[in-house]
Amino acid sequence: MLATDKHAGKDLAGQLVNEYFSVKDNDLVVGGRTVRSLAEEFGTPLYIYDAAIMRRCFAQLKAALAGFAEIYFSIKANPNPAVAALFVQQGAGIEIASAGEYERARRAGAKPQNILFAGPGKRDDELEHVIRGGIGEIHLESFEEIDRVEAIAARHGKTVAVAIRINPVASAQGGAMRMGGKPSPFGFDEEQIGDVLAALAGKTHLDLAGLHLFAGTQILEAETLLTQWKHGLDLSARIARDSGRTLRSIDLGGGLGIPYYAGDRTLDLDALRKGLPPLIAMKAADPLLQGARVIVEPGRYLAGPGGLYVARVVASKMSRGSRFIVTDGGMHHHLAASGNLGQVMKRDYPIVAPARMTEPRAETCSIVGPLCTPLDTLARKVDMPKLQAGDLIAILQSGAYGLSASPVDFLGHPAPAEVLVDDGKASVIRERENFAPAD
Amino acid sequence: MLATDKHAGKDLAGQLVNEYFSVKDNDLVVGGRTVRSLAEEFGTPLYIYDAAIMRRCFAQLKAALAGFAEIYFSIKANPNPAVAALFVQQGAGIEIASAGEYERARRAGAKPQNILFAGPGKRDDELEHVIRGGIGEIHLESFEEIDRVEAIAARHGKTVAVAIRINPVASAQGGAMRMGGKPSPFGFDEEQIGDVLAALAGKTHLDLAGLHLFAGTQILEAETLLTQWKHGLDLSARIARDSGRTLRSIDLGGGLGIPYYAGDRTLDLDALRKGLPPLIAMKAADPLLQGARVIVEPGRYLAGPGGLYVARVVASKMSRGSRFIVTDGGMHHHLAASGNLGQVMKRDYPIVAPARMTEPRAETCSIVGPLCTPLDTLARKVDMPKLQAGDLIAILQSGAYGLSASPVDFLGHPAPAEVLVDDGKASVIRERENFAPAD
Repeated sequence: MLATDKHAGKDLAGQLVNEYFSVKDNDLVVGGRTVRSLAEEFGTPLYIYDAAIMRRCFAQLKAALAGFAEIYFSIKANPNPAVAALFVQQGAGIEIASAGEYERARRAGAKPQNILFAGPGKRDDELEHVIRGGIGEIHLESFEEIDRVEAIAARHGKTVAVAIRINPVASAQGGAMRMGGKPSPFGFDEEQIGDVLAALAGKTHLDLAGLHLFAGTQILEAETLLTQWKHGLDLSARIARDSGRTLRSIDLGGGLGIPYYAGDRTLDLDALRKGLPPLIAMKAADPLLQGARVIVEPGRYLAGPGGLYVARVVASKMSRGSRFIVTDGGMHHHLAASGNLGQVMKRDYPIVAPARMTEPRAETCSIVGPLCTPLDTLARKVDMPKLQAGDLIAILQSGAYGLSASPVDFLGHPAPAEVLVDDGKASVIRERENFAPAD
Repeated sequence: MLATDKHAGKDLAGQLVNEYFSVKDNDLVVGGRTVRSLAEEFGTPLYIYDAAIMRRCFAQLKAALAGFAEIYFSIKANPNPAVAALFVQQGAGIEIASAGEYERARRAGAKPQNILFAGPGKRDDELEHVIRGGIGEIHLESFEEIDRVEAIAARHGKTVAVAIRINPVASAQGGAMRMGGKPSPFGFDEEQIGDVLAALAGKTHLDLAGLHLFAGTQILEAETLLTQWKHGLDLSARIARDSGRTLRSIDLGGGLGIPYYAGDRTLDLDALRKGLPPLIAMKAADPLLQGARVIVEPGRYLAGPGGLYVARVVASKMSRGSRFIVTDGGMHHHLAASGNLGQVMKRDYPIVAPARMTEPRAETCSIVGPLCTPLDTLARKVDMPKLQAGDLIAILQSGAYGLSASPVDFLGHPAPAEVLVDDGKASVIRERENFAPAD
């Protein structure tokens, strides 16, 4: 039994270690390598991604959605092309939100026709870039954008497949369905669909393929997703009927969550799978929908569990009865783990001492980074083995919204390396930055 | 009268425009250039810094502190070497918190002896780097660090000037003095001073120059600063007495705030100046302190008011009765303005339409960025002139904790340019990133 298991049910870190990793002697093993050996070989701070876990997350979701939906990887969750390539190789498309992400999707091996472009503020130079290079669909989000995409497509003599992004009357947030529909900068209100169809009617370079529904974020209940998805199919049927055309694609959004905090449940894929037959039947029964492909576009669900952020302890110190562990990593590399990426409550990500896995978590400490600000806190009063300078800490569930969502340049520390481990073989997929080029 | 003045006393944007900028016809003028012409010449999103305002902030603070303290610029607030160079040229030293910042301070023209190195997690390679290159003082923050600095200094055959960073019993936070002293990862507790002096006693390569007091952050009341500074002098006297030596330097920290939100007052420099004679007299009367220089090390106070973040409107849209203005800039370039850099309450930074300054603020809108997340909000229900695609917005008070404190790579948009305007002449001090290198 792992020492981390002592609070079974409440100890999320221990559960995740059991589910995704293994422990050899005192060491956490990721993809056949100990975290300790990876930290020694590649230095710290370090992002480690396990290719097998990412493939497994994809395969499990694909199996659950079989017969219902295709999967697109939302590349904003982890834009490293080597990570995105793992999903492309398994058959995923890529959802992008900028021309920069288009380039990363292409570097990951995605074909242009398998890339979808959504986002509320697409610039003309971005639209120009993807229309010239080829794009599967552009998801329209404002009346102005309809005109701009039409004009750019016309200038290039191309017809562009488009979908209408819809801000629905019912939406899911944080796991709960919310009825009534709030104002939103994303897409068109469901109530505006008639106007949107009218605006599209005269656009000869836009080919309406379907719709994109904003589904909420970090949803952990299968029931919530199923309800939202059913609403998406209802809306699709209405759009098809009102526009008098068959739809080719229905994007139900992402939002599939993963557990970050003690007490968070894991999304029940089995419940999701069991809830799909009525949706499949509903779509099959509608002649205007039956030929459409359904798309689900998760990001964190695919990339999150396979990633760890590893830092080394620089100092252990007491202040007025409290233990502080200062590491060489912090909020500049992992803003979300510091609680500053939109979290209302500051709670700790699951964290372990990857080279002292079987030791009792005998000391309560706060784990902080090297920045000169109290915001730079990675764990607050967490139980850990007694740590000292040279020890390692690892933050789990860090494969999504990690490095790319962090203020990397804040206080001038070098950007960390990213390493992909695949069945015992580790490759650098982003080089560590050198802190002082003159050196 | 500017249209922005209509809520005099509550309209912070209007007050700041009157204090620092000018308006010509309908345009905001910064350093002799209209923001509109700068946006046209350098593109958007864009950071604009006015050298004259930054010099003025420095000169006013220097005058207020005359006879009491020297000024060091805390380079974490804005690490662009061209910005730091403005203060170095006026006689400022530089306070750094990493080896990366050391390099930037050097590029800004700071001499090694005018650089101070503080920070709770200094790595060996960083200490090695600055000791080899030369450093004014290293501020010690843990017992482990004392041993490491001694060892590295010994290896290089150098003697290093050090100061003890102290976590005081009384501290200032958000403008209020708090007695009692909380646990902190920064420095040593005031109660540990005896142990620190004992640990330093045998260190032959460390030369105790003085102390560094953590003074709190974003302090807007002169009285709070004066109380904290007096406590710093009291502590200095005690350390000097206990160690039986004269001090050479007393670093009273930074923490001088600037107004960001409606109702925030401006730090009263006149009140600060008038409160200093008793402190000056107290120091002059102590033979162990009278030779010491006093250091104050602000960041945002010097760099904040001279900076603007400018973005262009991509779309204006209605959703369920609410107006949303979508711009090409957002939280990826200005995390603090989005309310995600440690702010507990999300309030708006002062914001204007820099090419429509004299028009009535006739429409209430939310201003959002292009990222696919509701976090990417720059203003919530603010009154603005009626904006449409192509219009500009400018966020004031953005010269500190702007670009370098933001998740620039999030969603793959190109990093913005930074432009320094000096008496009508504009220079690019950071090139805009190209979103698609293949282009």
